[in-house]
Amino acid sequence: VNTFVGSTGFILALYAAQAAAQTTQPQQPSHPSMAEVIAASKPGDWRPLEDENTLYVDLPAGRVIIELAPAFAPRHVENVRTLAREGYYDGLFITRSQDNYVAQWGDPDGKREMKKGSRTLPAEFERDVPASPGELPFTKLPDGDVYAKEVGFSRGMPAARDPGTNKAWLVHCYAMVGAGRDNTADSGGGAELYVVTGHAPRHLDRNVTLLGRVVKGMELLSSLPRGPQPMGFYDNPADRTPLVRVQVASDVPAAQRTSLEVLRTDTPTFAALVESRRNRPEAWFLHKADRVEICNVPLPVRPRR
Amino acid sequence: VNTFVGSTGFILALYAAQAAAQTTQPQQPSHPSMAEVIAASKPGDWRPLEDENTLYVDLPAGRVIIELAPAFAPRHVENVRTLAREGYYDGLFITRSQDNYVAQWGDPDGKREMKKGSRTLPAEFERDVPASPGELPFTKLPDGDVYAKEVGFSRGMPAARDPGTNKAWLVHCYAMVGAGRDNTADSGGGAELYVVTGHAPRHLDRNVTLLGRVVKGMELLSSLPRGPQPMGFYDNPADRTPLVRVQVASDVPAAQRTSLEVLRTDTPTFAALVESRRNRPEAWFLHKADRVEICNVPLPVRPRR
Repeated sequence: VNTFVGSTGFILALYAAQAAAQTTQPQQPSHPSMAEVIAASKPGDWRPLEDENTLYVDLPAGRVIIELAPAFAPRHVENVRTLAREGYYDGLFITRSQDNYVAQWGDPDGKREMKKGSRTLPAEFERDVPASPGELPFTKLPDGDVYAKEVGFSRGMPAARDPGTNKAWLVHCYAMVGAGRDNTADSGGGAELYVVTGHAPRHLDRNVTLLGRVVKGMELLSSLPRGPQPMGFYDNPADRTPLVRVQVASDVPAAQRTSLEVLRTDTPTFAALVESRRNRPEAWFLHKADRVEICNVPLPVRPRR
Repeated sequence: VNTFVGSTGFILALYAAQAAAQTTQPQQPSHPSMAEVIAASKPGDWRPLEDENTLYVDLPAGRVIIELAPAFAPRHVENVRTLAREGYYDGLFITRSQDNYVAQWGDPDGKREMKKGSRTLPAEFERDVPASPGELPFTKLPDGDVYAKEVGFSRGMPAARDPGTNKAWLVHCYAMVGAGRDNTADSGGGAELYVVTGHAPRHLDRNVTLLGRVVKGMELLSSLPRGPQPMGFYDNPADRTPLVRVQVASDVPAAQRTSLEVLRTDTPTFAALVESRRNRPEAWFLHKADRVEICNVPLPVRPRR
């Protein structure tokens, strides 16, 4: 069976296999592979997901876990927490799955009552770069970007910066979560959320409030049947996938939480991981790209140790 | 219901909806939208798929249609035709679906006999740029690329060029089809084919022979359940999706062919389409990207008129 290595997705399962391959096929790479970077990482290279910033979206097929991004969308994140806590999402549906684009959930009939949550909020498309770099670390990537002047990672999220305007914003990579809106900037709020399931639709950057990223369970969203209507809407309500329950992790009994940690993006270990993806030392790669685009940088996640 | 417009996928169904929206919500865009570009296109802006360069991959759920790219991979394309004609693929399986990466098919047991086809071929990772530009038109995109010096489209396929080496190659956008291989360059041949189902894995460029692109039916591949094993292999053979039949379109009775045409990529109409995606005139877009990355340029396809 011909195969090829390398994944930008959820790679827990790959670590063991790649580590084994490294053991049985020793090489002399000029720099470590991603598997070696991960294997050599120290506990401090990882950070646990904060329960208050973690959303569990339970589908019939399993749990989707979203890390929220209050550093970029504080009001939207707070509203999503409020909506989850009042049970607003429970029993709503994934109403739309558009191929190579997004899956989106919400209230198909517009009849669901909202208690403390807000239906709309002022847009949080971008934010100021703080005066103190430590307030919002930014690990800039070396190879540029088609859409933004600078791209990199802030607190585990793909982000862009414009030194001219001193603004920062999250970017639409695979697995990013945003708040659907109508034609005006302030017409979204988080009652309808979409997740990127295809090639990064970067033209949406600064057009929508991104508020988090799926860190586990993406395959449950990406493998949904596509809806036959324009923009991937399902025409038959029975084809919609229900949201069984949506909870903030801190509201879930500790024993029922899915305890995860993610690789920090502001460490020498992460810089080594980026380099391992720019030039793959694995024997399979015959042409080294010497480049990596922001949405091709993996963001490792694993059970908390 | 909050929604947003725009798709980089298969957009036949969207044309009518978008055209209707344009009619009821007149705007004064500085340039035409994609829907308007399509609506204003002339018959000569389209080209029919050539039956000899079209592969039908029939799955239980429907037909996947691949346009082959003999301009870039002539020997692989010829071998895939040969393998299809001798029935090599019929009854084989999609053995692997890796999230945000690829779906791949082949012979899981390595027992399928090969008659006239070749198991391996010399790599066709890149080709010379011909001396006469008309021999291989290249519509260069204006906004650069993270991986290649020049990117654009040649005969409907996303491609890159290096003026320094005078080489051209196909690039790994969503829906591109390549020949899986082992560690050596010449270990593939087309017996195992993979299709990109996630964010463009551009680090594979010039590492694999790309030989075509899925022009219809991508959603049948992208929505497959992901395999639980490393690299997305299915552990349970019953989870594999069978290839019911794989045929070159010219071998199929005319009445049973799926007759399609695709927008040419070497015309002023296509240049207008690119511009319509760099700066979206649709009212929903509040921030105009003024950029487009190669894998975000839609390649329209429709029933032949």
